Amino acid sequence: MGQNFYKRDDRDIKFVLKEQLGIERLLDFDVYKGFTMDDFDMILDQAQKIAANDIAPTFQDGDRQGCRFDKGTVSVPESFHHCWDVFREGEWFSLAMKTDYGGQGLPLIIAEAAAEFFMSANFSFGCFVGLGPGNGHMIENYGSEKLKDLFCRKMYDGTWGGSMCLTEPGVGSDAHMVTAKAVPDGNAYRLQGTKIFITSGEHNLTENIIHLVIARIEGAPSGAKGVSLFAVPKIWVNEDGSLGETNDVVCIGIEHKMGLNASATCVLNFGENGHCRGHLVGEPGMGLAYMFQMVNGARMAVGLESVAFGANIYANVLAYAKERIQGTPFGKSGERVRIVEHADIRRMLMNLKSLTEGMRALVYKAYLVEDLSKNCPVEDDRKKAKRRLELLTPLVKAYCSDRIFEMGRDGIQILGGYGFTKEYPVEQYTRDCKILSIWDGTNYIQSADLAGRKLNMAGGRVFMDWVEEVTAFVGEHKSGKTFTREIALLDEALQTIVGLAMDYGRYFQEGKLDLIPLTSTRFLDSMAETAIGHLFLEQGLIALTKLETSNLDSADRNFYRGKVDTVRYYCRNFLPQVFGRARIIRMEDMTAIQIREEDL
Amino acid sequence: MGQNFYKRDDRDIKFVLKEQLGIERLLDFDVYKGFTMDDFDMILDQAQKIAANDIAPTFQDGDRQGCRFDKGTVSVPESFHHCWDVFREGEWFSLAMKTDYGGQGLPLIIAEAAAEFFMSANFSFGCFVGLGPGNGHMIENYGSEKLKDLFCRKMYDGTWGGSMCLTEPGVGSDAHMVTAKAVPDGNAYRLQGTKIFITSGEHNLTENIIHLVIARIEGAPSGAKGVSLFAVPKIWVNEDGSLGETNDVVCIGIEHKMGLNASATCVLNFGENGHCRGHLVGEPGMGLAYMFQMVNGARMAVGLESVAFGANIYANVLAYAKERIQGTPFGKSGERVRIVEHADIRRMLMNLKSLTEGMRALVYKAYLVEDLSKNCPVEDDRKKAKRRLELLTPLVKAYCSDRIFEMGRDGIQILGGYGFTKEYPVEQYTRDCKILSIWDGTNYIQSADLAGRKLNMAGGRVFMDWVEEVTAFVGEHKSGKTFTREIALLDEALQTIVGLAMDYGRYFQEGKLDLIPLTSTRFLDSMAETAIGHLFLEQGLIALTKLETSNLDSADRNFYRGKVDTVRYYCRNFLPQVFGRARIIRMEDMTAIQIREEDL
Repeated sequence: MGQNFYKRDDRDIKFVLKEQLGIERLLDFDVYKGFTMDDFDMILDQAQKIAANDIAPTFQDGDRQGCRFDKGTVSVPESFHHCWDVFREGEWFSLAMKTDYGGQGLPLIIAEAAAEFFMSANFSFGCFVGLGPGNGHMIENYGSEKLKDLFCRKMYDGTWGGSMCLTEPGVGSDAHMVTAKAVPDGNAYRLQGTKIFITSGEHNLTENIIHLVIARIEGAPSGAKGVSLFAVPKIWVNEDGSLGETNDVVCIGIEHKMGLNASATCVLNFGENGHCRGHLVGEPGMGLAYMFQMVNGARMAVGLESVAFGANIYANVLAYAKERIQGTPFGKSGERVRIVEHADIRRMLMNLKSLTEGMRALVYKAYLVEDLSKNCPVEDDRKKAKRRLELLTPLVKAYCSDRIFEMGRDGIQILGGYGFTKEYPVEQYTRDCKILSIWDGTNYIQSADLAGRKLNMAGGRVFMDWVEEVTAFVGEHKSGKTFTREIALLDEALQTIVGLAMDYGRYFQEGKLDLIPLTSTRFLDSMAETAIGHLFLEQGLIALTKLETSNLDSADRNFYRGKVDTVRYYCRNFLPQVFGRARIIRMEDMTAIQIREEDL
Repeated sequence: MGQNFYKRDDRDIKFVLKEQLGIERLLDFDVYKGFTMDDFDMILDQAQKIAANDIAPTFQDGDRQGCRFDKGTVSVPESFHHCWDVFREGEWFSLAMKTDYGGQGLPLIIAEAAAEFFMSANFSFGCFVGLGPGNGHMIENYGSEKLKDLFCRKMYDGTWGGSMCLTEPGVGSDAHMVTAKAVPDGNAYRLQGTKIFITSGEHNLTENIIHLVIARIEGAPSGAKGVSLFAVPKIWVNEDGSLGETNDVVCIGIEHKMGLNASATCVLNFGENGHCRGHLVGEPGMGLAYMFQMVNGARMAVGLESVAFGANIYANVLAYAKERIQGTPFGKSGERVRIVEHADIRRMLMNLKSLTEGMRALVYKAYLVEDLSKNCPVEDDRKKAKRRLELLTPLVKAYCSDRIFEMGRDGIQILGGYGFTKEYPVEQYTRDCKILSIWDGTNYIQSADLAGRKLNMAGGRVFMDWVEEVTAFVGEHKSGKTFTREIALLDEALQTIVGLAMDYGRYFQEGKLDLIPLTSTRFLDSMAETAIGHLFLEQGLIALTKLETSNLDSADRNFYRGKVDTVRYYCRNFLPQVFGRARIIRMEDMTAIQIREEDL
């Protein structure tokens, strides 16, 4: 077992859940009536213990061992088996799944808060955990009663794993171009095709893996509407639930990667020998629509994973900065000091702290909105929440995953030469997190989705609802005595965003369409910063109120004071980036488009 | 042998050398009288061939094998031995060293251009190459005649290697705190101490290694002035030049790192058994002053290495982008296109292209200035050049090394999922280059050096000379018909820099000293962008003139057209960042300093 780098805490999560988002109100919903706030606390405390004590020790050791491929089989790092057992015993796989097939029925946001701890402990291990229940959930939502009975329970309790099989050679982001084929064969289908970059596509943690595969039924139309979804077991499951013969699904190799070495990224051949059988899930032709619900879930998870990495990086480098003695402060001579006393280290620490907490504010808010979109008693509220979630998802996915790599960079920098060594975990966090900006739709795809589709959803109403919400917040607080500068910055950032969105409308009309994808990454970052600025100021106001309470213990006082400073720091150091980017966007520079390819 | 990823070309280097910097004028200097421009061309062509054919194939394979430590010895990747032989046969080690001890006596900028090719081919191998001649050069400059005769020739021809031994456990950036001891012993000294992070401190490429070690002579004063420099051979060299007994220098381990796996980063114990002998180099107490000349050279090299990585990343991802078919352009349907046709990919490609060429413009200019500082016939010119070099060095070191990691990130992103795999070289470039922002003085140290010392050198005269030069350029061209917007941006950027530098003066006076280190990284980036904007516009004007030439071949036409677009792109997309950062700097936000440590 490797060293344990789990140093992070849960204070900010509890603040966000209880003090900002007020999740207590979820207890009013019928589906959550059986829970109390104490239940949530107990679950999160226990999740932390498992993360810290069972999973975290596998982090470094998993990276060094990696997954091993040998003649079609993939062995995970030895230490993962114990963690899997712990997960099974504690029933940690399906916290948010409904109880019908053994899920715990918890609010999504509680399940995801627990997942933040698990992801912090070892993201590679987390990759194995999520896919079984995720696939089970798809089958529960769209599969026949027979399929549900056959698969869900064992996918919810970790007996069986799962994988999402979309990508094919040459078909990455163009999921509608899939070439895998399915031919009807009795009650089932025979599948044929190759899928690549399949996370957890093969491993020895479970006796079976239920792959969800998109493929075209023979004779189906081309394009998206010809794509169907199939449940393809690694080992056939008989009608009585017993395991049958090995299905014709062969792992022909795993990727060697920059990071996430302990997660198996597989190439899978389906039906190489003509007898790979699978079950159609839901309606034919609906495969992409179904799959994209899972992809949207994965996009949200990217945000959460980024937060999890951020919390680790911050906790580890803060501990180092408080101990490492090096240099005298700028412009002073005399005794050397701990590096936490250097201004530039402080700057980087505050970047890490404010980004971790800012991303968390955004991600948790979005998860709450997702919960509301499903469980709000009023339909109109559910609909509104659903659309808000759609607006927020690209921000969550792209902003967080781009930031986390930069945070890795700053973390390494704070550690100096040691940051470049494997003695400290930050280089591995940095390597591991890099995939987040790529998978589940590259970050450019997110920004194009935001600028090209989400801004205009419902005639722009969804975007304007968000704008109005932030405007109302600004209006309410701008003549207050606290955070005066910060509220003014938020106001200016919001005006800038609105102005840019209007420019985008103009580009559409003026045939300057190329300017949108050329600048959409900058737009997305700017909108995310504005959204976070808003959520942060909500937090800051709460923290100030708490600080007026007389009997705070010192830990709470430190936390709230730190929160106030963090909010200030983010607003003053991140929000003005919105103005800088706007200036660049408004140059409307088309050089990158106009340059001839042969001149590149 | 691994795959060969050497796809870059030399066109921009030749443009910078001949068309922008006009290195032909160097031939007028006495020291270079023996050369012709044809010689330079031949040398660079040959260097490229060796880089592409001999060194580049060791890049991937070196990373996978890494250096191996076994009982005090370090084995380099097997393929490195052939490269070393090629270097020895072709006398590539000491291109810029004087001829007295076997150097080639070439202009520094030619040697460095050749080094750019070598570094592009395999940076890990390059780490072994540079230190022998580098140490030899120090001995040639400061050592006694006896030491020069004993060491220089064999260090210049690759018979012996070298290493720079500064860092000690707990003593990284505080080089003046060294604790290694030296006790006089006849003609020599007995050394004792441990040095860490020693690049090429032990390896099996050469029969001997001459370490340059800083240590304190017994009874020397504390602090910087008590530090002396010693030449410590791995194997003692007898007075007749023959090898004597093994000296008491033991490698006790190598670091396991994020990247640069084929470069040996060693922990060395000197005098563990009390009989490590070394020669004093130069005057006692001058050790740090000498060593810092070498460190300054290494800081310049960081810039060059960044350029070398940039050229690789750009060439590799451009080739991929021209082949990989994925997606339809934003807002269009129909046929999928090669990703080079997507706006966001274009944006990233142009970032890579303009940063590579922009950093090269800065780095090569600085190397030319260094040459002028040594070889200009007029003393005053030499002095001016020396100071300009001191002003530019932190920009070269920090701006380039911070950018190259971001370029690696963009390169990975362009490759999509493949970018995360080891099938493509960009993830390795990204891992390998990370050390550049750390070693030879972290990038914060560079920015503190710039803001705290270099801006004020000679009462601010050195900085103002640069400002006046750019001002004169702007004045000359701002009413011209070309690059009108870009010259205006440069003008505004320069005014911004001057304003910020004045603010820094005010901070000194007003006791707001902390604001300087808190913002110096942003200041450095902004000044570097302004300096590059200037050099780029010089290039753009040259390229426009060339395009008016009637009989350009198509390769040249493509190059010059591409250059004009690249200059435009950089000015419009990078220079405005100066304004955004200035706005943040001027918020004078002290939160990062004021936050209590217990609130972090």
